[in-house]
Amino acid sequence: MAKKRILSGMRPTGKLHLGHYVGALENWIDLQNQYDSYHLIADYHVLTTDLSTEHIYDNTIEMVIDWLAAGLDPEKSPFFRQSQIKEHAELFLIFSMLITKARLERNPTLKEQVRDLNIENVIYGHLGYPVLQAADILLYKGEAVPVGEDQVPHIEITREIARRFNNQYGEVFPEPEPLLTSFARLPGLDGNAKMSKSMGNTILLSDEPDAVTAKLKKAVTDTMKVRKNDPGRPEVCLVFTYHKKFNSGEIENIDADCRSGALGCVECKSRCAAKINEFLEPIIEKRKHYERNIDLVKDILREGEEKAKVVARQTMDEVHTSMKFG
Amino acid sequence: MAKKRILSGMRPTGKLHLGHYVGALENWIDLQNQYDSYHLIADYHVLTTDLSTEHIYDNTIEMVIDWLAAGLDPEKSPFFRQSQIKEHAELFLIFSMLITKARLERNPTLKEQVRDLNIENVIYGHLGYPVLQAADILLYKGEAVPVGEDQVPHIEITREIARRFNNQYGEVFPEPEPLLTSFARLPGLDGNAKMSKSMGNTILLSDEPDAVTAKLKKAVTDTMKVRKNDPGRPEVCLVFTYHKKFNSGEIENIDADCRSGALGCVECKSRCAAKINEFLEPIIEKRKHYERNIDLVKDILREGEEKAKVVARQTMDEVHTSMKFG
Repeated sequence: MAKKRILSGMRPTGKLHLGHYVGALENWIDLQNQYDSYHLIADYHVLTTDLSTEHIYDNTIEMVIDWLAAGLDPEKSPFFRQSQIKEHAELFLIFSMLITKARLERNPTLKEQVRDLNIENVIYGHLGYPVLQAADILLYKGEAVPVGEDQVPHIEITREIARRFNNQYGEVFPEPEPLLTSFARLPGLDGNAKMSKSMGNTILLSDEPDAVTAKLKKAVTDTMKVRKNDPGRPEVCLVFTYHKKFNSGEIENIDADCRSGALGCVECKSRCAAKINEFLEPIIEKRKHYERNIDLVKDILREGEEKAKVVARQTMDEVHTSMKFG
Repeated sequence: MAKKRILSGMRPTGKLHLGHYVGALENWIDLQNQYDSYHLIADYHVLTTDLSTEHIYDNTIEMVIDWLAAGLDPEKSPFFRQSQIKEHAELFLIFSMLITKARLERNPTLKEQVRDLNIENVIYGHLGYPVLQAADILLYKGEAVPVGEDQVPHIEITREIARRFNNQYGEVFPEPEPLLTSFARLPGLDGNAKMSKSMGNTILLSDEPDAVTAKLKKAVTDTMKVRKNDPGRPEVCLVFTYHKKFNSGEIENIDADCRSGALGCVECKSRCAAKINEFLEPIIEKRKHYERNIDLVKDILREGEEKAKVVARQTMDEVHTSMKFG
């Protein structure tokens, strides 16, 4: 049986951090063997919240290097930019006719962003970003989309648009299913629930061992554990969360020794840093290879875009035929 | 000095009527000698108020035949469809990031349409149609747009978007001026102020003499003039409006004879029909030529689209370069 097709994407915000890895990339790498995967670089989506594009290309290249270094295989799953494939915009325009303004205003994620970013006046394209997302997915006839629980409402909009199109013009699109995966969130070094570039609380996939060790040293731990021999509470300690992820073999000992006071934070952080560095070592090594061969990265992107264009054009031919535009 | 470039467009709703001619086409034919003209067939715009596209291609061909028959010269001014040039959608997507939802909600024409068409829930793409219009104009770097007074608010949105883009990414677009022309409105045969297909009160550019005569016979005149010799009031009579347009040489006599009662409505209508038929005769003859040579019409459209694509691609290359998408 043919593999199901999935579409997953990321905004190109530059070098990735461990939060990106745990929250998305790890899953994608896993899924690329079971599914026919397409990986979108959502550079137009960036504009919904930030118009400055000065560094968008460099950020794209850095992200692609991290994708490659972490283990995404462009032979299995093409990488491509929205901005290079005009069919994304074309399908966005057509889909913009198939959904009401009111429906988009009810999108809970938009409401959150408006609140979090203190947006006074929503941009027209920001209101429509689930329409662009629908175009991104359906252009490749994505049958499933790996998302976390919070992204399910968007997939519902995509499904509605697919249904609406199919009812009006004939069966062209699948109704993609959300592929609910355990998208863990990795807390930031400052104790914030989310690792995020804008909060400056990240460990990058490209951080050298010294940098990781230094960052870990400053990480927030259980504030009740002041001196080395104080008993600690691993369940409130973010370093313990990192141990769970990157040092799972020793987790029971660390838990016990932290609680008893046998293990101090300095030692605990140092062991955590070592494990993270162990995890990052092959990624950094592969990254260096690609940094030395930037043309290779550009070629990979170009080839991915050529592959994606073939699919995109075929879908749009079907769209035009079914809409009888002539 | 190089000719200024203008962009004018029409929705493809099928065969054109005298209202289209007087309201737009006549001006376009006049302007094509003074300006570098581009003529857009706004087939995506149709979707903002009607999703059925069953007849959109046939309607396009009928409209193009009328354009040609009435005297638009495709050698001077290419004809092309939005749906065939992906760059329209691409620029629409980018421009959608440069204007707020609130700004578009204030568009007076949208408010009118919502009222006139009893729209309960505005479609997202309908809200954004001035953005698509901005893309249509600026894709060809239109410096002027021939419009009536009521269209000036749209051109203002186009100017705002052009400014916003230029400020953010560098000077790419002109700020097009409205080219205010005397867009007369021709009343419908039922006395309605506007000739309109949906009201069934039109004389088509393709109506044969018998049809025109029969349609005129049923036209509404001054309701106070019941019998032939009753004195009439030309200023309230739509047939008199037609005389003013198509029989201007006799207008003084007709005015006097109507007022005195010497000229009855039957005779007046018959003379009006004769003049309209005289006007339509060469148009119908040219139409028949194109109807017999549909492939020629299709070639004209194809060539227009090739010409337009060259300009559209060049503009989008500039857009990509200035936005640094790489």
